[in-house]
Amino acid sequence: MLEIEAKARAEHEAVKRRLRELGAEHRGEETQKDIYFAHPCRDFAATDEALRLRRDSKGCSLTYKGHKIDALTKTREEHEVIIDDYDAAGAVLKSLGFLKVRAVKKKRTYYSLQGFEVMLDEVEGLGEFVEVEKKGEKYEPKELVDFIKLLGTENLIRKSYLELLMEKESLRNR
Amino acid sequence: MLEIEAKARAEHEAVKRRLRELGAEHRGEETQKDIYFAHPCRDFAATDEALRLRRDSKGCSLTYKGHKIDALTKTREEHEVIIDDYDAAGAVLKSLGFLKVRAVKKKRTYYSLQGFEVMLDEVEGLGEFVEVEKKGEKYEPKELVDFIKLLGTENLIRKSYLELLMEKESLRNR
Repeated sequence: MLEIEAKARAEHEAVKRRLRELGAEHRGEETQKDIYFAHPCRDFAATDEALRLRRDSKGCSLTYKGHKIDALTKTREEHEVIIDDYDAAGAVLKSLGFLKVRAVKKKRTYYSLQGFEVMLDEVEGLGEFVEVEKKGEKYEPKELVDFIKLLGTENLIRKSYLELLMEKESLRNR
Repeated sequence: MLEIEAKARAEHEAVKRRLRELGAEHRGEETQKDIYFAHPCRDFAATDEALRLRRDSKGCSLTYKGHKIDALTKTREEHEVIIDDYDAAGAVLKSLGFLKVRAVKKKRTYYSLQGFEVMLDEVEGLGEFVEVEKKGEKYEPKELVDFIKLLGTENLIRKSYLELLMEKESLRNR
């Protein structure tokens, strides 16, 4: 199915004020620890795909993300399974030749507003972001962009947290 | 962890009589539908590995099996995760380049005896087999062989049902 999503850098205090003004509903928060993997014979950085193992308050999941399908948002094909055992899943992936690229840790706060899920992400090593996601299969990229602007954000980012973290590290190591 | 296991062809009626004589406990039965996958860049037939998606009465699981580690039994490294969604797991694997090799369907009846799990398998297209499995990490291959002989079986098979089915089909297509 499609993960219909857009992301922007955002000061959380300002976005929270805007969310309150617009009557958004606070839906909880959690800490997510993700591990991203490299494919044994495909360059995910080149194909714009990702494989992620996640541990959060709801449990563990394994998620494949396909390449982005439009020029504005982060919308992409996504397949996800809930798994019972994080370590066993890591062992399956390692045995199949998938190597750990790096971990991404963040605190995520959820809101819902006008049929969108709004996520305020505080990403370890990167700072504050907002992601908006639309449930369903049909979307109009501009509709996502308009919605995220409504929250007071401007500069959309299509790169993943993994890419941003790796970019930051490669700059530091120059 | 290790899957400590041996397998033999066996007439189920004869083995069931023997199990009754030895005081084995009947533990239930179920139908298992497995799909085996080929690795996108590794020849599992050559490396003696396997990746299996299983659906049975308990739910769904994804299992990696390493190469066999002794000359007598089917003992091998195994990593398994329980998953919530068979179709989504198939979609993750397909997206990662894992191709379906074929399905293996069987009726499996469980017994326990002397610290072993005994499984009577009626495999679609192959016939009747018995598998014995020892729980734990330590084993002596001869102990497994002696136990399976105790059930009245003689000829141990180290090939998987997948290999046996593919062998049968390649003979038929000659």
